[in-house]
Amino acid sequence: MMKIDVLTLFPEMFDGVFGSSILKKAAEKGAVDYNVVNFREYADNKHKTVDDYPYGGGAGMVLKPQPIFDAVQALSDGAAVKPKVILLCPQGERHTQRKAEELAGEEHLIFICGHYEGYDERIREHLVTDELSIGDFILTGGELGAMVVIDSVVRLLPEVLGNEESHRKDSFSTGLLEHPHYTRPADFRGLKVPDVLISGNHKLVEEWRTKESLRRTWERRPDLFEAIELEPVQRKCLEEIKKEGL
Amino acid sequence: MMKIDVLTLFPEMFDGVFGSSILKKAAEKGAVDYNVVNFREYADNKHKTVDDYPYGGGAGMVLKPQPIFDAVQALSDGAAVKPKVILLCPQGERHTQRKAEELAGEEHLIFICGHYEGYDERIREHLVTDELSIGDFILTGGELGAMVVIDSVVRLLPEVLGNEESHRKDSFSTGLLEHPHYTRPADFRGLKVPDVLISGNHKLVEEWRTKESLRRTWERRPDLFEAIELEPVQRKCLEEIKKEGL
Repeated sequence: MMKIDVLTLFPEMFDGVFGSSILKKAAEKGAVDYNVVNFREYADNKHKTVDDYPYGGGAGMVLKPQPIFDAVQALSDGAAVKPKVILLCPQGERHTQRKAEELAGEEHLIFICGHYEGYDERIREHLVTDELSIGDFILTGGELGAMVVIDSVVRLLPEVLGNEESHRKDSFSTGLLEHPHYTRPADFRGLKVPDVLISGNHKLVEEWRTKESLRRTWERRPDLFEAIELEPVQRKCLEEIKKEGL
Repeated sequence: MMKIDVLTLFPEMFDGVFGSSILKKAAEKGAVDYNVVNFREYADNKHKTVDDYPYGGGAGMVLKPQPIFDAVQALSDGAAVKPKVILLCPQGERHTQRKAEELAGEEHLIFICGHYEGYDERIREHLVTDELSIGDFILTGGELGAMVVIDSVVRLLPEVLGNEESHRKDSFSTGLLEHPHYTRPADFRGLKVPDVLISGNHKLVEEWRTKESLRRTWERRPDLFEAIELEPVQRKCLEEIKKEGL
């Protein structure tokens, strides 16, 4: 069972997300154990202060090292395996599917979520093993980033996904964007499904899907082609798409 | 007041996030009104089915157009301004701070969150105004992506952030990664704060911060330099950093 600890000043933010859908099922199946901790509980000062003014002056508060060091220490104590200690921050490495797969092989993850404050650099240098960012946008805190990383990791754990969701996942493993999907009705308020999909001709359906997957990737994310090796039939198809676009 | 509607099959996922911190304060201040809707309520069939098998065969279910078209229609009815209808999906445009700023200028946002199912293409083509992705990783549904986009947008609305958080935001506006922060104690279990920060010499502190901000950006995100124009003093400093790294 994977153990996931989250250090946050807003533990209630996690209730809805850990209590729904796949993340909830994963815990029910015993694949993961979530533990959301308010690190204010670890502050050793009378007023349970977790932040302080920055050395050198300036606006904004900085998270003190002591509460976070002691919380991580307490959560790691007696653990057979050294946990990964993950800091969510804009300066971190961009989270990717590859990183999610790497983390899914770990036994114990501890996430540190700051909240508009900065982090004392000693946390970063001497406690954290991985700094992650989910993108180039400013969020109020690390909590949403932690939820995103946790969702991407937990769904990869063995036996978490049912067949339905596994198949959906497989369709990403081509490295291309998915082709369009359609379901009933064939005519929805005048908007029609492409004829080929209701032709009953499986070969033509497959060709259409291959082409539309390549077309969408070409139009929206040509960078994805750099990471994959196309098969000859895909290469030929992509050449056709490029000609059609001229 | 900005109006934000969220269409989801898991409305309870949003409780903790909309009920905490800045997103909660924004609603209390009247800057935003959240409305989380289970679009299953709009399904016009007896069993309230929202998905169906894909045309052309294959694994995975596809969200039907009817419930989502009717939900968006109902939420848009009588609105003075046409809403932005935002679909969270891996095929979407990558969300950025620039996109957050653009969306913060809107009056009404409707987010559509699918959940392992695909979307019927007619939703994408005829209903949605913006397709967004928060990154190249697979999530169980669009809900976490919607939360991320909403957080990045709502904190930009006028009067949502207090002074404390505004200042923190300003520190990102340089286009560079932030310099390291330190707070008390100056010696934490043998780990020391850099001497310059406790020197009391403001000029040296500023020089150190400029340099460390450039250094961190150079080491971790050199791509960010492409989007900004460095001042002469920054350029000189960056040259020093590059030399030090050789």
